[in-house]
Amino acid sequence: MNRPEFELIDWIRARVTDRWPVTLGIGDDAACLHPAADRETLVAVDMLMEGVHFTFPPATAALAGRKALAVNLSDIAAMAGRPTAAFVSVALPNGRGMDFARDVHAGIIQLADEYGVVIAGGDTNSWNGPLVISVTVIGEPLGLQPVCRRGALPGDWLFVTGAVGGSLPSSRHLTFSPRLAEVKRLAELVSLHAMIDVSDGLAADLHHILKASAVGALLEAAKIPLTATVRQAADGRSPLLQGLSDGEDFELLFAVSPEDGRRLVAEWREETPVTHIGEITESLECRLRQTDGQIEPLAAIGWTHRLGAGV
Amino acid sequence: MNRPEFELIDWIRARVTDRWPVTLGIGDDAACLHPAADRETLVAVDMLMEGVHFTFPPATAALAGRKALAVNLSDIAAMAGRPTAAFVSVALPNGRGMDFARDVHAGIIQLADEYGVVIAGGDTNSWNGPLVISVTVIGEPLGLQPVCRRGALPGDWLFVTGAVGGSLPSSRHLTFSPRLAEVKRLAELVSLHAMIDVSDGLAADLHHILKASAVGALLEAAKIPLTATVRQAADGRSPLLQGLSDGEDFELLFAVSPEDGRRLVAEWREETPVTHIGEITESLECRLRQTDGQIEPLAAIGWTHRLGAGV
Repeated sequence: MNRPEFELIDWIRARVTDRWPVTLGIGDDAACLHPAADRETLVAVDMLMEGVHFTFPPATAALAGRKALAVNLSDIAAMAGRPTAAFVSVALPNGRGMDFARDVHAGIIQLADEYGVVIAGGDTNSWNGPLVISVTVIGEPLGLQPVCRRGALPGDWLFVTGAVGGSLPSSRHLTFSPRLAEVKRLAELVSLHAMIDVSDGLAADLHHILKASAVGALLEAAKIPLTATVRQAADGRSPLLQGLSDGEDFELLFAVSPEDGRRLVAEWREETPVTHIGEITESLECRLRQTDGQIEPLAAIGWTHRLGAGV
Repeated sequence: MNRPEFELIDWIRARVTDRWPVTLGIGDDAACLHPAADRETLVAVDMLMEGVHFTFPPATAALAGRKALAVNLSDIAAMAGRPTAAFVSVALPNGRGMDFARDVHAGIIQLADEYGVVIAGGDTNSWNGPLVISVTVIGEPLGLQPVCRRGALPGDWLFVTGAVGGSLPSSRHLTFSPRLAEVKRLAELVSLHAMIDVSDGLAADLHHILKASAVGALLEAAKIPLTATVRQAADGRSPLLQGLSDGEDFELLFAVSPEDGRRLVAEWREETPVTHIGEITESLECRLRQTDGQIEPLAAIGWTHRLGAGV
């Protein structure tokens, strides 16, 4: 029974401390969590595959592991939640050795520690295939209820955290910070009507909110916060198009009432900016006001090379 | 946005009904579950890879999907739990087409329906690699507390459900019934001290209980219930050795007090047998009494070809 997987599991266990809400962690047939009374449980699941969601280089084993957890933490942030426990399943490529396997988990554990998330279990396998990492994150809503994609109302102001575009060429998709601190502050300041994290692309993810909420939107091209990457890139596509469609930004896109929107603009003091980029409309169309004032339809343009799709 | 993944997700959503404990299912950034008051939450995670945990044939797409859920349901059974919700992440091989993808999920949905489990979310991807399925199952203990690997006491009787051995050659690992009905009846009849499901092999999994409980055991070779497969096989290894080491049986191995053991022997009326196969001892050794009365050490022999290892 001296299988390398058991050695790896012992290595992981030595670096993980069970604490609330985990009452039984790594090492049994299932883990046991004690949820807070009267709180719902959030569950996010994402699978990342080598060659699709990351490649070596620029990814390292640790960055691949980090991203697999980070995208799930971003999903919990997008529900206005806080993550508590994570489960990590891996298919490790034979022949890349134990250091590689440890590095994958070290990247995960470091990010988990940063956000106070307990690694409570998982499944460790190896095979003659590329690296696959599937992470499940358990969390709970910051308030009594989570914030969903549905719930945006006509007249609501649309905001996005940070800046968008160029996540892949800049490798930001490997190193981004899930917006957990930001959403905690947002939930204290305003009533979030609808929210999503920008993974498919700002326009495509806006369409998800619009469809779920049965509303439309008018975005202001001049207001979209673009990253330095796209402003400087010699990409054939305009910086705006990159910002609207690149995806993998993992910023939060959300709708609040105009009153809350004005308060956010006036009172937001955090390091990560929040930018008012448009309004929700009763008309079901999704439109973009170009910088010259022309209003055009905005399709659900997204990262078409991306093959993954959260269910 | 007419990506095949979205088509598949719509196909899945049309076949899944949200119900307790799922308050927000497929289609947002995370799912939301409402756990029963004062109950702990069980979480099981397993990843299955083509070529390691199943091969085509004898597996079909539906049987591969079925197994990926079934092994997790078996983990919940092994905690004396009942499963409530499942999350399914897949890496689908490009080129095998949409029918294949649907069949994987049809196999999962059919088994989920059979056991009253709601598919509450997941992640759908495709790539130029083999099929990978990672399933997370949420459940709750049947009683107030789950039954763990630790907790076996000297003098306890050891039981196993069903029969062991030959799961791979007979393809039973693709079609087995997780012992959820059986564990529900067991939890009504007796106090389960320690339990595990037999995945690595009866001897190896017994060692897991012994290590976690800090006890030893004496198994009776004559009492081990062997499947017809191993009794008829022309395998170079004895039927007993196959029963002890083949693994992937997904039977329940558990320890109860002698009083409860006697009651089980007298009162168990279910279709799946439970067999008294030995005792827990204070001495830390794991031993086997051969049919000729000789007592020998029993090592943690398990399916060494198996590369997966539950954390």
